Amino acid sequence: MTVQRSDARRNYARILAVAEEEVAAHGADASLEQIARTAGVGSATVRRHFPSRRALLEAVFGERIEALGSRAEGLLYAEDPRAALLEWLGALTAYATSARGLADTLLQGGTDEADHVNACSAKLADAVDPLLHRAAQARAVAPDVTTTDLITLVTGIALATEHHPDPSAEANHLLALTVQGISPRA
Amino acid sequence: MTVQRSDARRNYARILAVAEEEVAAHGADASLEQIARTAGVGSATVRRHFPSRRALLEAVFGERIEALGSRAEGLLYAEDPRAALLEWLGALTAYATSARGLADTLLQGGTDEADHVNACSAKLADAVDPLLHRAAQARAVAPDVTTTDLITLVTGIALATEHHPDPSAEANHLLALTVQGISPRA
Repeated sequence: MTVQRSDARRNYARILAVAEEEVAAHGADASLEQIARTAGVGSATVRRHFPSRRALLEAVFGERIEALGSRAEGLLYAEDPRAALLEWLGALTAYATSARGLADTLLQGGTDEADHVNACSAKLADAVDPLLHRAAQARAVAPDVTTTDLITLVTGIALATEHHPDPSAEANHLLALTVQGISPRA
Repeated sequence: MTVQRSDARRNYARILAVAEEEVAAHGADASLEQIARTAGVGSATVRRHFPSRRALLEAVFGERIEALGSRAEGLLYAEDPRAALLEWLGALTAYATSARGLADTLLQGGTDEADHVNACSAKLADAVDPLLHRAAQARAVAPDVTTTDLITLVTGIALATEHHPDPSAEANHLLALTVQGISPRA
């Protein structure tokens, strides 16, 4: 029984890791069958852990949000508060771009799913809050920027670059423009 | 026959004007029946001019793109090149926010529709190009900003604020942040 449980845990972790890569490569259309093949398990095993594509997408989503939270904690004592905030925004942009279609697909699932996405957004806001606060104290950000603004801007950049030939490069370029300002008052 | 034609033209113009308001209020889900009622014509008349919801959305889309083009032309000789560019970006943001879901719905229609949306994006890029050029000559914009960047950023802001309680206010706030920079290097 114990062996089965730890096997199951390992399977779950492996399937989730493979699912993250599949979602990064194919967005919300990631194939459950392909995930099973790459993880070296049967489709039934995938379905036992994740009864639906939605359950799997939610797990991938949640996992990445956790990782971004840890990243923010790690950056909280970095020397340069502005650089720390920008590094985290870069990580958020990379994630949002690679997770293309994910939030959108979840949002189309109705109220429960929208609640899940909103809860994730709230977690991201909590994660970046101390980074933003430190950068604001160092006068390294515009005084009226909120955590929601930052997350909404990055979400928008990810959504708008989805059909670009090189979404990741274009998203980074647009983030840099947004950070620096497209037309700062002289 | 001539009378019928000019009646038809008037009907067309009225239906299109009502459709713009309906799309601004309800996005791509605008009701053809409601449009007919508000325009004071029968459903059959609406359908004669616009055989499908898609045809109507395309017409609304095209009409607004034309209007933004004229607005850009009008701003080309404004005194302050930066203010002129920002006024146009504000108009684009207002349009993109009110047309929520429109481009997305059209994009889901397949290649023909994607071509149509891309053609509209290209028209917008052509419209803003001289405004951007003038602002760049006056050193009022970041040197590496392109027309595509501007349109993509505004599109992203509109997409990301779609579910906000006050999309228009939030979009304006985010545009202002993007123009000024969320963290300009001191």
